[in-house]
Amino acid sequence: MEFESENQEKKNFFTLEMGKITRHVEKIAQEDPRRVIHSLKFGFTLTLVSLLYYLKPLYKTFNISAMWVIITVVVVFEFSVGATIGKGLNRGLATLVACALALGALHLASIPGKTVEPILIGIFIFIQAVASTFIRFLPKVKASYDYGMLIFILTFSLVSISGIRTNEIFKLAHMRLLTIFIGASTSMIVSILVCPVWAGEELHKLVAQNIEKLGNFLEAFADEFSNKSSSSAESQNDRSFISCLNSVLDSKNNEETLANFASWEPGHGHFMYRHPWKQYLKIGNLTRQCACRLETLRGYLNSKIEASEEINGIIQSKLSEMSSESGKALKQLARDIETMTRPFSPNPRIENLKIELKNLKSLLKSNANLLQAIPVAGVASLLIDIAICVENIEEAINQLASCAKFKSLDPNGVEGEESKKECRSVILVNEPTICG
Amino acid sequence: MEFESENQEKKNFFTLEMGKITRHVEKIAQEDPRRVIHSLKFGFTLTLVSLLYYLKPLYKTFNISAMWVIITVVVVFEFSVGATIGKGLNRGLATLVACALALGALHLASIPGKTVEPILIGIFIFIQAVASTFIRFLPKVKASYDYGMLIFILTFSLVSISGIRTNEIFKLAHMRLLTIFIGASTSMIVSILVCPVWAGEELHKLVAQNIEKLGNFLEAFADEFSNKSSSSAESQNDRSFISCLNSVLDSKNNEETLANFASWEPGHGHFMYRHPWKQYLKIGNLTRQCACRLETLRGYLNSKIEASEEINGIIQSKLSEMSSESGKALKQLARDIETMTRPFSPNPRIENLKIELKNLKSLLKSNANLLQAIPVAGVASLLIDIAICVENIEEAINQLASCAKFKSLDPNGVEGEESKKECRSVILVNEPTICG
Repeated sequence: MEFESENQEKKNFFTLEMGKITRHVEKIAQEDPRRVIHSLKFGFTLTLVSLLYYLKPLYKTFNISAMWVIITVVVVFEFSVGATIGKGLNRGLATLVACALALGALHLASIPGKTVEPILIGIFIFIQAVASTFIRFLPKVKASYDYGMLIFILTFSLVSISGIRTNEIFKLAHMRLLTIFIGASTSMIVSILVCPVWAGEELHKLVAQNIEKLGNFLEAFADEFSNKSSSSAESQNDRSFISCLNSVLDSKNNEETLANFASWEPGHGHFMYRHPWKQYLKIGNLTRQCACRLETLRGYLNSKIEASEEINGIIQSKLSEMSSESGKALKQLARDIETMTRPFSPNPRIENLKIELKNLKSLLKSNANLLQAIPVAGVASLLIDIAICVENIEEAINQLASCAKFKSLDPNGVEGEESKKECRSVILVNEPTICG
Repeated sequence: MEFESENQEKKNFFTLEMGKITRHVEKIAQEDPRRVIHSLKFGFTLTLVSLLYYLKPLYKTFNISAMWVIITVVVVFEFSVGATIGKGLNRGLATLVACALALGALHLASIPGKTVEPILIGIFIFIQAVASTFIRFLPKVKASYDYGMLIFILTFSLVSISGIRTNEIFKLAHMRLLTIFIGASTSMIVSILVCPVWAGEELHKLVAQNIEKLGNFLEAFADEFSNKSSSSAESQNDRSFISCLNSVLDSKNNEETLANFASWEPGHGHFMYRHPWKQYLKIGNLTRQCACRLETLRGYLNSKIEASEEINGIIQSKLSEMSSESGKALKQLARDIETMTRPFSPNPRIENLKIELKNLKSLLKSNANLLQAIPVAGVASLLIDIAICVENIEEAINQLASCAKFKSLDPNGVEGEESKKECRSVILVNEPTICG
């Protein structure tokens, strides 16, 4: 009896744990269903290249080298097209260069005779390893070619070492190149043709979403500033806002990685090859600067209760309006990016905001004694600062719209030659690398 | 003549370019001389394992598998000890598990007969690849075991595929395990014994340096607020401050990577095994929150000229004092972390700051009409907010000091049992994962 109930208990525990894990896995899959598709794509590609082993004629050609095809697919196949292409090209080119250099080194080492050969090869490997490892520390190399350098070190060492023992060194190098070419190109083709995930599109969406999040925050702040919402709903709101703001503040690394991957991608959909991805990074930086102000604003919100009684009615409604206007302007800008629409010029939302900004400034100047409570003054100056941030973001998005040739809905908008001129001046005069 | 001058020109151009590259390389080396040492360490290790090929008895044992030693060293040897150990263990354990499972799968597939075998193995590879790739998306796996999962997929596929053709599959699996063990352990030993770079120590220093940077910024702000420095020196200062603040704001990713590596490291120097690395991340987050406020403050600084004439003398000096006190408190906290000294309790610097905070608040309340200029009010409320940030950072550092058993200089300080109790309560009650 006891044994049975113990067994039952274990079974229950097991069912409970399995349920937990299943729910966790389901959540991960629902958050982004493309993860499931990617897993299936990868499984398909790996099984496909494994066919090389089943087919006798192919096996005869490649022999043991066939395993390099499998290794290449496992290592190169990434979630986004850009990452896959970047890794594939890095691996292919690095192998090519390393094979050529290693064959040259082997030839050099063989000249003085058989006894000195291994010593010379050892010296070559050492020098190559030290130099390549150091080069990996250079920021530009680290950003785009780190994987290539790793493969270079690997291939150079393997080929030059094998040269001592194997006489078929040319065949080995040739096989390695061919198998890596097959693996990398299969990965790239599947990655592009089957439900592709474009890093550029991800970056585009991420930047727009971050701006929208800030807009939502400002609008909610406006509501909270004018009406007093119940404190329990508030604290829940607050928590979701904290995580929202934090996700914006922590997005830099993600944006830079995506921009790097995007630079490897060919043109697709609305994005041409050499789309101004760097401009997205600039907009992202300005968005984070704005998010910093909102983080400060959130700090003030927490001390709201202390101040609320002293807050003057006129200023309060003005501040609420100002916050709401900033939020709307940001959300409009986010929509403009998402739909790749050129913002109206002059942008009516930004013009509104400028008028509000002027009004608030003059109101504050003429009614300095209204500022009985410090927090209000703090909020006021923060909101002024945030409005300036919004203008900066708008300017950066305008530059992007010019460089990336966003479509224009503006009946009086500058189009064609003039916008091209604008973009070129941004590229050539202001910041040479922006639209590169 | 023309040809000669052209040649001369080319030579000059070449010399110029080489000079540029040399200076760039020198800068990278001078920034952190350990980069040069790491390159030499890696070159030494790679040449060492290449010896396996020169020594005939060793070559006879390992044959072609010897190249796995080289591959392992190239892939596993990283800049910090923690990263090397983490990758080495991931690679070793993943290979062990994958070999065992692949052998099991081969046995299963061989039961129904020779014709079905390749089909079954193909199905196993597909299922394994899809499941493992999906598991790599789980955040916890991605953070610590991503590389292990990659090696698992690779080894499982290679071993089970080779099983179809080779009868010596047990020997192959055994060789792969042994060679990876040799490569990984050589890398780890060299990494630990020759000028080790500990990720934990790096994290420790980085967190302290970031707090110090904020302290410097606040002290400089205090100076600038009381005296008017010349505008040219100022703009240069401003630029260096921007890059300083940005480096603090962008440090999250770096800190998380270092904390992850640090968790793989054995005890060393002042850091025991299971040092509370997560608490550093908490301090880092609070530091970035504070940096956000300083970023906002910097925004106000830029509009300083507009406001300077309206600023009232009393408040100005009070604000300057407040800023300087906050800066000093932060720099003291940074020194405490660096020297692993338990902050005095109650902390005199923080007590000072609290008094200043109280004074400023009451001054502002009694002299509301002093606040003629909005920027002053903004700066005032920001500084109040920053002081609260500093207190939060101090609290987090106190928790770290308890958990990590910092030495105490405080004659009245809590030590021994009491501090242990404090730490345990932090671990058990407040946030279960903090000191884990």
